[in-house]
Amino acid sequence: MSVVITEQEREALYKVVHSRRDVRSEFISTPVPQEVLARILNAGHHAPSVGFMQPWDFILVTEPATKAAIKRGFDESNAASAAHFQGEKRAQYQALKLEGIMEAPVGICVTCDRERNGPVVLGRTIKPEMDLYSAVCAVQNMWLAARAENIGLGWVSIIDDEVLRAALHIPDRIDIVAYLCLGYVSEFSEQPDLEKHGWLQRMDINNLIHAERWSEHEKGKDNR
Amino acid sequence: MSVVITEQEREALYKVVHSRRDVRSEFISTPVPQEVLARILNAGHHAPSVGFMQPWDFILVTEPATKAAIKRGFDESNAASAAHFQGEKRAQYQALKLEGIMEAPVGICVTCDRERNGPVVLGRTIKPEMDLYSAVCAVQNMWLAARAENIGLGWVSIIDDEVLRAALHIPDRIDIVAYLCLGYVSEFSEQPDLEKHGWLQRMDINNLIHAERWSEHEKGKDNR
Repeated sequence: MSVVITEQEREALYKVVHSRRDVRSEFISTPVPQEVLARILNAGHHAPSVGFMQPWDFILVTEPATKAAIKRGFDESNAASAAHFQGEKRAQYQALKLEGIMEAPVGICVTCDRERNGPVVLGRTIKPEMDLYSAVCAVQNMWLAARAENIGLGWVSIIDDEVLRAALHIPDRIDIVAYLCLGYVSEFSEQPDLEKHGWLQRMDINNLIHAERWSEHEKGKDNR
Repeated sequence: MSVVITEQEREALYKVVHSRRDVRSEFISTPVPQEVLARILNAGHHAPSVGFMQPWDFILVTEPATKAAIKRGFDESNAASAAHFQGEKRAQYQALKLEGIMEAPVGICVTCDRERNGPVVLGRTIKPEMDLYSAVCAVQNMWLAARAENIGLGWVSIIDDEVLRAALHIPDRIDIVAYLCLGYVSEFSEQPDLEKHGWLQRMDINNLIHAERWSEHEKGKDNR
């Protein structure tokens, strides 16, 4: 017999989806209990994966020295990234806090072992990137699970893979998908940080939906 | 004030995560109401996106002729894919039903506009694949939203991008991330199809978790 989701449970799912945030500034030091972390990781492990490949691994980071090495990598990449923006946009970029590496009690590096259960993987034969996408689904499951635990998560993408590889001793054959910061928060913002700070606005969903074939809507602006 | 998720709501999220399936065989013809589809798409639109880029578009497919063109593409790619497997594994592959393109009332092609809100995108400067990963997060949000609506979703990855591009008139500058089949189902399986059919087993999560740095666990077998 199938599991049936009730209307109340459906509303709970939407509540979690719509209150999830990319957290950078609001982490507090309260430790994440082991059983809570285990539930979040287990949600990741129950993401869909191409050919049931389960290509993910989760490296848990808690030591300040490890975090500091990763933070140095972020600082370097972030300074280089700022230089891509011009004038006012650069000043705005530099004023944003984009990570909580040191403050978040737990870091999670999510990787993808592209050789696992292979070499031929059902469903990856035509679209080779599917294994990486499976690992991303695991990230999103964990993000929602964390929010359901009233725990914040931030995906820090401004770190060179080689920094994480060195800090966490990740072999060359393993792809790095994400570095996540995890922890309880002082608050969850009502809006995404970048929307709140006027970086970009939420797009109108009606401009993103197409019937039967692609249609040209007006959207997206030059954001240099 | 932050939105607080109750224990009951947390359990609802986990119920959805753990009962979600990649549906191929169980679609029924009951139409998906417009307001239900709108909620699912809106969950996709509220996925995290790098630099708040919102790079996704959703092309809705309902006409049998469009589905048939996509199905022909699947059949061709699937036959080519079977040839990669040897002996018994090939026979097993050929016996699996891997898509519900014609049966599912709605198809959704999820794309990624890599130029949107660019050319420089906050958070994509170091990891250029982040925009594609954002679109994958939208897929996973829709997958869970669909499950919360007691609607099945299947991600069909055995279709050449060029088949979808031609069938749906998608411009060359737009990347194709996923083709999803959506509809009510006769039942949700207790286990993933590939686990149920003995293709692969669920891995032990303890072999996927590493403390502070990568450690070599025994896992993954040659699956030719």
